[in-house]
Formats: sequence, C-alpha cells, structure tokens
Amino acid sequence: MKPQAIVLLSGGQDSTTSLFWAKKKFKKIIAISFDYGQRHSIELSSAKKIAKLAGVMHRIFKINEYEQIKNTALVDKNISLYKKDKINKNLPSTFVPGRNILFLTIAASYAYTCGIRDIVIGVSQVDYSGYPDCRKKFIKAMERALSYGMEFKFKIHTPLINKSKKEIVLLAKKLGILNFMKWTHTCYKGISPGCGKCAACVLRAKGFKEAGMNDPQFT
Amino acid sequence: MKPQAIVLLSGGQDSTTSLFWAKKKFKKIIAISFDYGQRHSIELSSAKKIAKLAGVMHRIFKINEYEQIKNTALVDKNISLYKKDKINKNLPSTFVPGRNILFLTIAASYAYTCGIRDIVIGVSQVDYSGYPDCRKKFIKAMERALSYGMEFKFKIHTPLINKSKKEIVLLAKKLGILNFMKWTHTCYKGISPGCGKCAACVLRAKGFKEAGMNDPQFT
Repeated sequence: MKPQAIVLLSGGQDSTTSLFWAKKKFKKIIAISFDYGQRHSIELSSAKKIAKLAGVMHRIFKINEYEQIKNTALVDKNISLYKKDKINKNLPSTFVPGRNILFLTIAASYAYTCGIRDIVIGVSQVDYSGYPDCRKKFIKAMERALSYGMEFKFKIHTPLINKSKKEIVLLAKKLGILNFMKWTHTCYKGISPGCGKCAACVLRAKGFKEAGMNDPQFT
Repeated sequence: MKPQAIVLLSGGQDSTTSLFWAKKKFKKIIAISFDYGQRHSIELSSAKKIAKLAGVMHRIFKINEYEQIKNTALVDKNISLYKKDKINKNLPSTFVPGRNILFLTIAASYAYTCGIRDIVIGVSQVDYSGYPDCRKKFIKAMERALSYGMEFKFKIHTPLINKSKKEIVLLAKKLGILNFMKWTHTCYKGISPGCGKCAACVLRAKGFKEAGMNDPQFT
C-alpha cells in the first residue's frame, strides 16, 4: 500500500467509487471538494456524508473564479442546462471551461504543501458528456504541467478513465458500496432524487439499467 | 497584427514590459491581475496605473485559494521571506506552489469565454528566483494542458523567457517605457520604493545596474 493520496470528491457516483477504490490502495486519504457556486451545491452535503462513511479527512475549498467569469450553465442560472456551449458548439452548456484544470491545480498545490504526490480523480472518457477535461490525453498533459510547475513529481490516478457507466456501477458493487450510492448526488438541477432529465441523470440511469440494478437513490 | 490577447499584469517590471510588447503585436488587449492575498498587494495599484497608461481594459480577479492553503511566505506573514521552501529545499520560501498554473488557468478560462486564444505572460528563466513555473518547459506543458482541457488551441506568449534582467531593462528602453518603470512595483515586502534587500529587489537592481541605467523608482 502506498502512503497517502488526495481524492477529488464531488459527492457524485464516480468520485465516490474512486474514493473507495483509493481506500484499497492508500493508507491515508484526504478527500477534497469544491464549492464553486455550482447550482447543484447540494452535492457538497453528499460529499461530507460520503467522506464520513469512508472515514477519511475531508476539506472543502471555497473558490470564487466562476462567480467572476460566469461562463457556464452550471453556475449561471440564466443559461439553460440543455443548450450548447457558446464557444465549442459540440459541447453542452454545462461545460465549465477549465474546471478540472482548476480543481487539479488546487488539489496539487494542497498536495504539495502536505508532501503528497498521488492525486485521484474519477473522470471517465467512455460514457461522459464530452467534456474535454475528462480525457486521458488531458490528464497526462496536466500531470506533466503540475509536475514541471512545482518541480514535484505528481501522479494523477484515474481508476474510471476507461470504464463505462455500467462498469462503474459494477465496480461499486465489487467494492461493496452500492448501497452508499443512495447518498451520492448527480443531478445538475440540484434535486434529490435526481430530475431524471438532465444529462447527468440520464447517464447515471443508463449505467444502472445496463448493469441490471436499481439505483439506490430511488429506494 | 493579431486581433486580441489577454496579458497577465502583476504590476511589476516584467509584466509591464510584456504588456507594451504585446501592444505592438495585438490590436486589442485585456490585462488581468490577481488579488490572491499577497503581502505586496500594493502591486495591484501599480497594475491599475500601468493599464491606464497603456490604455487597455483591466480586470482584477480576486482569488482565495492561498488564504485556504497558506503555503508560502508571500501570503503568510508568519513565514520569513528569506528562508527555503519546506518541500523543495532548493527553492526560496517565496515560491507559491501552483501560482502560475492557477493564474494561467484563470486567464485561459476567461480567454475561452471571450473567444481569445493568445495569452501573454512575462516569465523569464534567466535571471529569476528559481521558480519552476517560470521555465519554458513548464509553459509548453501548460499550453498543452489548457488546450486539451478546453478543446481550444491556446498560445502562451513569453516574450521575456530567454532575457536577462539587463535585457528586459533594455527592451523597456526600446519600447519607450523606461520612465513608466517608476510606477511598477517589485518589492515582496510591499514597500515603495523597494526595500532593496528581498530577492525581487536584488534582481531588479541587478538588471538596471548591468544595463547602466538608474531605476526610475528611486527618482
């Protein structure tokens, strides 16, 4: 087992699964979450609950960049959740430009301060919303930028990168945490249980359906 | 001339020189500065003054990451300016882990929103404090991470990357802005004119001395 890791925990299904994956690989874990003005800030309560269930340290960083840039439907309620991004027409309006870059930067700055080199993030490039910062080629480039920028060799772990939503559900089952999924939050609208219509809810439902299981958030 | 660029403007000598360099390359410029809790926040007044002299738009982003991480002498007054960094013993305590990564990330998020691909930053890897995020190899890696992360091709311009402090002074002279240097701020202690003792003041003095010129901040 490796000594320590920082795990990015949004409070959703994927980051929760990644957290419990990491618990098997690292002796000590610090989970971190971001309060960035997201309209589904209810996910932070899920993150707290999940961190408690996992028995790990948890820190929430309050960041205010997106209040100042206001460039995404996830922060600005005047932008519809169901439109396209203004710049990249092939992306949905829920794309937050630079979000994972920012999150990984803060995670790495904090990790550096703690002397931790391992960072875990639950991105997947299989069943996803097309967000470019969820792809392996971005993660590799970011790992390099962070390592050069701080002269400190980081390793970014992405246990779900090649997993479909179905496979993520099956991994949660294997890790014995399927029941914890009832505490996770997915819906962009910030409704619990999810609205069932936004892209995040649709992807989640697809995973459970394909895995042949009921989503515990509805039980 | 290219249409637009974002210039990172701290209010110091290097970013000011880079701003006026950029004015010759781009039709429209937006200068951005960061209020990150730096003990020399007086530099933000310099940035405002310089942006006004340059006749460019100016935005200051207030960021609070370092208030929460507290890992550097530049933000935490309990850490001496003259010691070594806790993690990288070959770096000074004034190193802010991840600062240029964070600044470039915010610059790029904002640039994306404005549809701007060109970003200018006044880093130099010649006469510098050894900060790893001032090196060409970091800038290249960061350019790639930003471009992949937002699926948007960015170009990070570093007009000073291979220039010594002397050469930067000579470039300012060539650009006809040597006199504006009296409005720039360099000192880590936040004293104007500079304390003359901190690493930033020492580097600045070296440049003017080698260029055979007087530093306008003392006139």
